[in-house]
Amino acid sequence: MQNETTTIVATATAPGTGAIAVVRLSGSEAISIAEKVFRSVHDKILSEQKSHTIHLGNIVKGNQTLDEVLLSLFRGPNSYTGEDVIEISSHGSPYIQQQLIQLLLDEGAQLAEPGEFTLRAFINGKMDLTQAEAVADLIASEGEAAHRVAMQQLRGGISNQLEQLREQLIKFASLIELELDFSEEDVDFADRDVLDKLLNQAQDRIKSLIDSFSVGNAMKKGVPVAIAGKPNAGKSSLLNALVQDEKAIVSQIAGTTRDSIEDTVILDGIQFRFIDTAGLRETKDTIEAIGVKKAKTIISDSQILLYVVDPSTTTVAEINTEVKALQHQNPLVLINKSDLHDVGKLHNQNQELEDLDSILISAETGLGLDKICEHLVQLVKHTNYDTIVSNSRHHVELQQTLTAIVAVREGLANSLTGDLLAVDLRTALHHLGMLTGSISSDELLGNIFANFCIGK
Amino acid sequence: MQNETTTIVATATAPGTGAIAVVRLSGSEAISIAEKVFRSVHDKILSEQKSHTIHLGNIVKGNQTLDEVLLSLFRGPNSYTGEDVIEISSHGSPYIQQQLIQLLLDEGAQLAEPGEFTLRAFINGKMDLTQAEAVADLIASEGEAAHRVAMQQLRGGISNQLEQLREQLIKFASLIELELDFSEEDVDFADRDVLDKLLNQAQDRIKSLIDSFSVGNAMKKGVPVAIAGKPNAGKSSLLNALVQDEKAIVSQIAGTTRDSIEDTVILDGIQFRFIDTAGLRETKDTIEAIGVKKAKTIISDSQILLYVVDPSTTTVAEINTEVKALQHQNPLVLINKSDLHDVGKLHNQNQELEDLDSILISAETGLGLDKICEHLVQLVKHTNYDTIVSNSRHHVELQQTLTAIVAVREGLANSLTGDLLAVDLRTALHHLGMLTGSISSDELLGNIFANFCIGK
Repeated sequence: MQNETTTIVATATAPGTGAIAVVRLSGSEAISIAEKVFRSVHDKILSEQKSHTIHLGNIVKGNQTLDEVLLSLFRGPNSYTGEDVIEISSHGSPYIQQQLIQLLLDEGAQLAEPGEFTLRAFINGKMDLTQAEAVADLIASEGEAAHRVAMQQLRGGISNQLEQLREQLIKFASLIELELDFSEEDVDFADRDVLDKLLNQAQDRIKSLIDSFSVGNAMKKGVPVAIAGKPNAGKSSLLNALVQDEKAIVSQIAGTTRDSIEDTVILDGIQFRFIDTAGLRETKDTIEAIGVKKAKTIISDSQILLYVVDPSTTTVAEINTEVKALQHQNPLVLINKSDLHDVGKLHNQNQELEDLDSILISAETGLGLDKICEHLVQLVKHTNYDTIVSNSRHHVELQQTLTAIVAVREGLANSLTGDLLAVDLRTALHHLGMLTGSISSDELLGNIFANFCIGK
Repeated sequence: MQNETTTIVATATAPGTGAIAVVRLSGSEAISIAEKVFRSVHDKILSEQKSHTIHLGNIVKGNQTLDEVLLSLFRGPNSYTGEDVIEISSHGSPYIQQQLIQLLLDEGAQLAEPGEFTLRAFINGKMDLTQAEAVADLIASEGEAAHRVAMQQLRGGISNQLEQLREQLIKFASLIELELDFSEEDVDFADRDVLDKLLNQAQDRIKSLIDSFSVGNAMKKGVPVAIAGKPNAGKSSLLNALVQDEKAIVSQIAGTTRDSIEDTVILDGIQFRFIDTAGLRETKDTIEAIGVKKAKTIISDSQILLYVVDPSTTTVAEINTEVKALQHQNPLVLINKSDLHDVGKLHNQNQELEDLDSILISAETGLGLDKICEHLVQLVKHTNYDTIVSNSRHHVELQQTLTAIVAVREGLANSLTGDLLAVDLRTALHHLGMLTGSISSDELLGNIFANFCIGK
């Protein structure tokens, strides 16, 4: 990252050709650099203009006019970065953008690195680290759920939760420190039971945040749904049918990744990641056994299991055994090919599918696909975390905070002295600080902001 | 196109993911529609804000916040379209853009058609038709030369020229009309010689504009350069060498089209379109003859001819004959493979290449490629039109204006009466009017603006 005193420049809009494109400058020289290349049509002097105003003029390069532009002026600290910011809205040709940036570089600006505008916003106290990270998540979010989680984080959702936690821990710490001051007199200012209760609350809150990560991560990357079953049950055709049906059921957002065994669909704003698995059967073939083993890993890592069966080749008893063996928390049995076979017999035994939800479907005709979708959405919407953690860095810091708090509680239970308790307590407070960025290292910041797009 | 009283909306920045994206609203309801979805962080009321101001706030959808945005407000007529305009700069995720546009549509905006913002600028008198067309050219321009021509047109270069022309014609027309008023008295108010001189000036000016089209069109679409020569002279390797060398010599603009026989390179800001042709030789094979015929058409349509020869299989006399037969105005002989063969003999006879420029090259080693590039740039830069026409619609209208003026002059020469002269004169003024848009039809406007990108 650059020295914070430099003025940085980058295109802020998506690459390519558009009606307009926006080039952004930030830093103490932003206005004076812009002044060198901008000629207001009303002969206004930029440095005399108020913050949050827009000016029509020409970008000039020597005696040539590069473009007619709108220039927006923001004075720090009331800007995105907290510094003086200039945004130049030009005609959206890649040629003009390239020339404009070159012109600004010639006048003394430095090319911004990925995330550098947001890094400066963080450094200048415009947002904490979790909010800065939310900016990247917000831009990358493809579905309503991922967007909502990022937006909540951008608006300080996680920071607020952590602030409460931190207050609890600091309250606890202050009592301990008080004891340390009077350590030679061997007094206990803090009622140990009250302290433990306080820590218990903190622990519950952190646990809830940690638990929410499985939901948050799924919303960000897509809820993993394994499609499993015996060979030829119709797993692949089901995957195709679910994906082909996408346009009819779901939003029109483009850009979902596809490969041969995985596919992503957005249902009711939630992104689902369907993973086709190898057919499950007992085998002595070593290669096939590897495939089956891999399938079992995918199943246990997935949040939902769609177990596809062919009613003409199976019995209710078999299904019960097979699904139980997979030990999955959210199995749904799909009785496929129900357009071809008389499924009456199997279906009438439904009550014997012990505690298993089942749906009659046909991947071929599309029968029952809408019910699968409804079921999936219901399963995921059934989470009621008030705050959701979706960032794996946050997840790790929270786990380390939890470990430290558990250690403090163990110390309390074993009547350890205040100075020993204080060590674990400081560890907990350290990890919370790392999370919000009140404690940070260059390496940490480098890693976080390198994942941003340039211009943000 | 929509009714002009509707308020239109579209994303104005390039599609895809960026740090920010800009959604644009234009129309009488722009501010009131924006007001329904925007909540200023400082509780400002949008409709009370001044033009050219920027406001920080949230886009809300029911009780959910879609994004934190910057909103720019422009009041007509001081806006791009001449109407009230709102630009919302949001985080650059496709999801947010889509949701934001949906929200604005729900509040009564209409989705803009391609070019509709610029069409409104034209309708509201913010620019004439040639300037509106220049906006599309400016956005599409890939090199310095194309950009310069579009910029000159956007700033009214062609309109100014046409305005002078129109004044000359109107002056002439007023004298003719005066005669018509007194037609029964058989007087000639206008000195026929002075009139003819006036028309002659107009004719010269239009001819110059028409002639400039070959340059303007070349700058816009790339200067066509044919690569010709006998089979195995090394034409294809030369094309490859010129194109591979691109990065070293030329600007870094991406997006040039490539196919098997044509390739584009930007040299010194000018785009060149190299076209490889079939080897030229006498043949009785019907299929091959078609190829040779096609090659000859490409050569005669191209502005520059690179004639490649293999010095080990040809003589100076042959080269002279072959190039002469092609009757091209700008031939350049490239003596290829000069790294492999002793070209001393051929090259010492250079004076015998009657009036033909020649360069020793090697497509293999890259020898002489820089000289080819210099030569090409020099040839094209040797044009000194003050105004350049680059639009084929303008070219057609100018040709029709010219035809009408020639007809008036013929009428004068044949002493036709004023009422007959007036007919052709009106035709000339009609075509000039079509050019600038002072006369326009819905169909014409539809055709022009359909080529724009949405959001402009």
